[in-house]
Amino acid sequence: MRKVAIGQAGGPTAVLNASLVGLVEGLYGSSEIYPVHDGYQGLVERNYGQLNHSGYEWIRQHAVVPGACLGAGRYDFSSDLMERALNQLKLDDIHTLAFIGGNGTMAALQRMGDMARQMGYELQTIGVPKTVDNDLCETDHAPGFASAAKYVMLSVRNIVKDLEAMRNFEQVRIIETMGRNAGWLALSSGFLRSSDQDGPHHIYIPEIAVSSEEFLKSVGETVKVNGTATIVVSEGFSFAGEDKIERNVVNGRQILGGISSRMEQLIRDQFGFNVRSENLGMNQRSASYAVSLQDRQEAYEVGKQAALYIKEDLSGLMVNIQRQNTKCYNYTVGQVPLEQVARSGERLLPASYLANLPEYYNWLGPILGESIAPYPAKWREIKNESTIYPEFGRSQEK
Amino acid sequence: MRKVAIGQAGGPTAVLNASLVGLVEGLYGSSEIYPVHDGYQGLVERNYGQLNHSGYEWIRQHAVVPGACLGAGRYDFSSDLMERALNQLKLDDIHTLAFIGGNGTMAALQRMGDMARQMGYELQTIGVPKTVDNDLCETDHAPGFASAAKYVMLSVRNIVKDLEAMRNFEQVRIIETMGRNAGWLALSSGFLRSSDQDGPHHIYIPEIAVSSEEFLKSVGETVKVNGTATIVVSEGFSFAGEDKIERNVVNGRQILGGISSRMEQLIRDQFGFNVRSENLGMNQRSASYAVSLQDRQEAYEVGKQAALYIKEDLSGLMVNIQRQNTKCYNYTVGQVPLEQVARSGERLLPASYLANLPEYYNWLGPILGESIAPYPAKWREIKNESTIYPEFGRSQEK
Repeated sequence: MRKVAIGQAGGPTAVLNASLVGLVEGLYGSSEIYPVHDGYQGLVERNYGQLNHSGYEWIRQHAVVPGACLGAGRYDFSSDLMERALNQLKLDDIHTLAFIGGNGTMAALQRMGDMARQMGYELQTIGVPKTVDNDLCETDHAPGFASAAKYVMLSVRNIVKDLEAMRNFEQVRIIETMGRNAGWLALSSGFLRSSDQDGPHHIYIPEIAVSSEEFLKSVGETVKVNGTATIVVSEGFSFAGEDKIERNVVNGRQILGGISSRMEQLIRDQFGFNVRSENLGMNQRSASYAVSLQDRQEAYEVGKQAALYIKEDLSGLMVNIQRQNTKCYNYTVGQVPLEQVARSGERLLPASYLANLPEYYNWLGPILGESIAPYPAKWREIKNESTIYPEFGRSQEK
Repeated sequence: MRKVAIGQAGGPTAVLNASLVGLVEGLYGSSEIYPVHDGYQGLVERNYGQLNHSGYEWIRQHAVVPGACLGAGRYDFSSDLMERALNQLKLDDIHTLAFIGGNGTMAALQRMGDMARQMGYELQTIGVPKTVDNDLCETDHAPGFASAAKYVMLSVRNIVKDLEAMRNFEQVRIIETMGRNAGWLALSSGFLRSSDQDGPHHIYIPEIAVSSEEFLKSVGETVKVNGTATIVVSEGFSFAGEDKIERNVVNGRQILGGISSRMEQLIRDQFGFNVRSENLGMNQRSASYAVSLQDRQEAYEVGKQAALYIKEDLSGLMVNIQRQNTKCYNYTVGQVPLEQVARSGERLLPASYLANLPEYYNWLGPILGESIAPYPAKWREIKNESTIYPEFGRSQEK
């Protein structure tokens, strides 16, 4: 029976466990499954063991649970450690390695495949995509992203409404999103915007440089015209000529965060507005109650497809989602060489979407898994149509 | 026809507009309705006008929209300004004032009633309760709280799962909640905890003083035993002997916030852990996707009941929710004098709940509007039962 080591790596998503469930359901019965704890660290430390039926059922209980039930996390996976992991796997007679992860995970899988080949050790490698940041190439999108995008757009829309209600007290809110070096998530916050006056009024993403002067000018104008301004900023954005702001550095990995606080300070200093910045935080990758069911379904399917490829003896590939060019959203689950994924590197927002936002939103809509009804128009927009509300508002004079 | 000025005041909730809809539905047709913009400020500045049918429909469109569609906000409502507002209402021949709000709103309504009486101006006053903090007395609970509590408990549970997945990288997360001087919201985060090992591991509330030394000791022990620690802290908590931490002061009102950052720093300095603090922010009072349908229903009902009391010529009262002592959750919507609400002041967690947490959670459960399925037990807890998972985990030795 084929022995398959499976693992999860990197930051979790709301649907990462669904991929794991798809993978184990596809393999159970026909393979010996060795779940690895804490990502690649578990390979190095031999923190794995054969899954029995109870363990199988335990994993299946996580289909709708966020996080990574095996443990994922971050790990500085050097070549020495990779070699150690490979020797360990070889000793245990495990010849298949399937990992669910993002760019780093795919690159590591590919390198391990290369090293195994050099060692003369036969190792089948399969990657399953996952990232809330959507910065993974060679797939239409990565499972996890749509749920995060949905959480961000719903949260931002609600916070806009909350700020409108507080307009006599607060002028500006700044909402910071995840995304690393890519603006996919931040830009999704505008998806539910119903008019130019509606928030979020400004979205700042790493792909587009803006000076702090331009930024302040825009915000000042919006508050003047609109009364309030809601700003969304990606953690990877930095003002022209400035470095990205780091929260901290762990294991050599830069953890971004803090640009919203800087913007808050700039606005307060410049205008004296009552301004509040907030970071949408870990909910972005774990909000079970705002999951896209389409996203969860696809996460499950890429996991299941990985199992199929394993049984077909395919290797050195990442499962991907391929959108079909039809009027309605339609996709197939396919494959792409890991080498190609590694070569393509980090995926930023394409110029075509930056030049044409509706095109981006047309792409984004179907993977949210449901149609989201718009909120009513703002009172201020309605009031101008004096024929509709002739008596409501300041218009009634004695 | 009776002329009724209606308004919303204070910070919004996810269901505040539902109360407004109940109120206007109860009044429309039998009264002239004058919606007031931006809370009491709109009274002073005469920012109101008669609602026509289109306006009525516009308000009704907000039944499931968070925020406060009339504008609410904060306003320093001095006696001089109250007098000005009363004179204005008198000029406009408006003799009924119904406001949806929290403690401050009820106190202002009561004072305006008193002042009107002294002026010899007949003014009917009705308050409709609203607060996410649940710090309003003389009602079993206030609409808005249950939805906020549900958002907090779901978010915290998910963030716990996310941290468990990141255990090789991060040790501690600190999650700050709203609540002002009361711990209702923060304490609700433990509702879904399934075992002692499950997070949140520590909850800090304003009602219970803890020294920073005790705090650090608890966190250190939890990380030692459990690997990670998730901490929830109410914005109104402060270490024994220290002042509450303010975000800022606006219009003389203290805006709390920042205790989680202080805790983060203390933990980093003491243990060198990778620790992250985050504030659940404005989503707590506006997360439309995690609303308690029971809460929304009750919010609507207290608004509708206020309309009924207005038509019955009752005055000087706040609508309230009265829980009946039955095995199942059962309530009636009733009334209490505004004077009594003002006298009772801020409502903190009672000693009985602090001494007996299950009693608090029994009280909390029914108003969440749905049963929430538990997440599976943690792997670590399962692993100890070696008969169940004999081969999964480190146990497999060669």
